[in-house]
Amino acid sequence: MGEIKIIEIKKSVFADNEQDANNLRKELKAKGIYLLNLMSAPGSGKTTTLIQTINRIKDKLNVAVMEADIDSDVDAIKIKEATGIPSIQLHTGGMCHLDAEMTRQGLDNVTTENIDLIILENVGNLVCPAEFDTGSCGNAMILSVPEGDDKPLKYPLMFSVCDLVIINKTDVLPYFDFDMEKCKKYILLRNPRAKVIPISAKTGEGVDDFANWLVNEVKTWRCEK
Amino acid sequence: MGEIKIIEIKKSVFADNEQDANNLRKELKAKGIYLLNLMSAPGSGKTTTLIQTINRIKDKLNVAVMEADIDSDVDAIKIKEATGIPSIQLHTGGMCHLDAEMTRQGLDNVTTENIDLIILENVGNLVCPAEFDTGSCGNAMILSVPEGDDKPLKYPLMFSVCDLVIINKTDVLPYFDFDMEKCKKYILLRNPRAKVIPISAKTGEGVDDFANWLVNEVKTWRCEK
Repeated sequence: MGEIKIIEIKKSVFADNEQDANNLRKELKAKGIYLLNLMSAPGSGKTTTLIQTINRIKDKLNVAVMEADIDSDVDAIKIKEATGIPSIQLHTGGMCHLDAEMTRQGLDNVTTENIDLIILENVGNLVCPAEFDTGSCGNAMILSVPEGDDKPLKYPLMFSVCDLVIINKTDVLPYFDFDMEKCKKYILLRNPRAKVIPISAKTGEGVDDFANWLVNEVKTWRCEK
Repeated sequence: MGEIKIIEIKKSVFADNEQDANNLRKELKAKGIYLLNLMSAPGSGKTTTLIQTINRIKDKLNVAVMEADIDSDVDAIKIKEATGIPSIQLHTGGMCHLDAEMTRQGLDNVTTENIDLIILENVGNLVCPAEFDTGSCGNAMILSVPEGDDKPLKYPLMFSVCDLVIINKTDVLPYFDFDMEKCKKYILLRNPRAKVIPISAKTGEGVDDFANWLVNEVKTWRCEK
C-alpha cells in the first residue's frame, strides 16, 4: 500500500477565514469535488464509520480522505489498508481545529484528479471545529451512544452547524441509558434542518443510509448553481 | 435544594497565564483548599463519577464543585441533587477551556469557607483544556472505554499533564475492543508518573480507589511546603 503521507499543518495567516472558506468552496465547485467536513468527540467511531461507508460507495464515487490529528498516523493507515483509497494524515501541531487555509494545505497534498468526494476527518473535539468554516461543501458529525443523549444541550454550536448528525454505536444501546427519541428532539431543537441517521459502524446497521446520503449530497451539490 | 447559580465567565485579560496560575495556587494553599481540575472528552462520565465519589468522601472532606460548560446547567443541578454539596455552573460562552483567570471568576462565586476540596469539571474536550494551567493543585482526566485504547496516542498533551487517568465504564468492556493493558502502556509512554485507576461509575467498581486517591492528595498537598 506504500507509506502514508504526513502533512504538518501550519497556522493560518489569513485574517478573514469566512472569505477564505467561500473562495475554497468556489474552487472545489469548479473542480467538481465535494468536500465533507466530518466532526465528533474523540472516540465516537469516525474512522470505523468511514471505512464501512467508503467500502459501500467506492464503486460509485472516487473518494479520498484527509485524517486530521494532533499527533499519530493510525487513522490514515487504517483507512488506506481497509479501503485502498488515497488517504493522507494532517498533523495540526497541537491545534484543536482546522480552518479553510489549513484545509487547503491538506488539499494541496491529496490526489484531486478524478476525485468526486474528499472527506476531512476533523480533530476529535465538539467545541473548536464548529467555530471554523473549513471551506467544506457539507458538515456532518458523529455522536456515539456512550457519550449520552444530552450532548446537543451541551455543545449547541456543533449540532447547529451540521447538515447531518450520525448517531453511532447503536449496537450498545442496551447497555447505556440513551434515549434515542429524546436525543433526536434535542438535535432538532438546535437545528431543525438536521438529518439524523442512527448507525452501528461495528455491525453495519444503518451505514447504507449514510452511504446513500453521501452519494445524494455529492450529486445534488454538483447540480446546484 | 434551591436554585443553581450560573456564572457567565468572561474572557481573560491577563497575558501571563502561567504567572496567574501560580498566584492562584499560592492563594489556595494559604486558604488550605485543594483545587482539582478534572478533564475529559464529552460523555466520558465526569458528572456520574463525581456523584459516586463525592458521596464516598463527603464525611471526610468538605467538597464544592464548579461545573464548566459552554451552555446548559444540567450537570450542576445533577451534582447538587445527588450529593447535597455546593455546586455552581460556569458558562464559558463558547470558549473551549478555562485558564487561571476564568477559574478565579468561578472561585469568587463558590463557597470557600471550611471547604477542603473544590473540583472543577472542565469543558468536555481533550485538546484545549490541556494547554491552559487553571491554577489547580492537581490535574485528573477520565478516559472511557467506548472512546478506545488509542486515545493517549492521539491526544498526547492531555495525558502528559494529568497526575491521574481514570478509565471509566469498565462495565461495558465486554462490548468494546478495548485492551486495558495496551491503554495503560500508552498512557505511561506519554506520562511515566501517571496513576491509572479503572472504574465503573455506573456499578461503583473502583470508585473507592479514586476516592482514596483524592483524600490522600488533599492531605499530602496540605503537608507540602
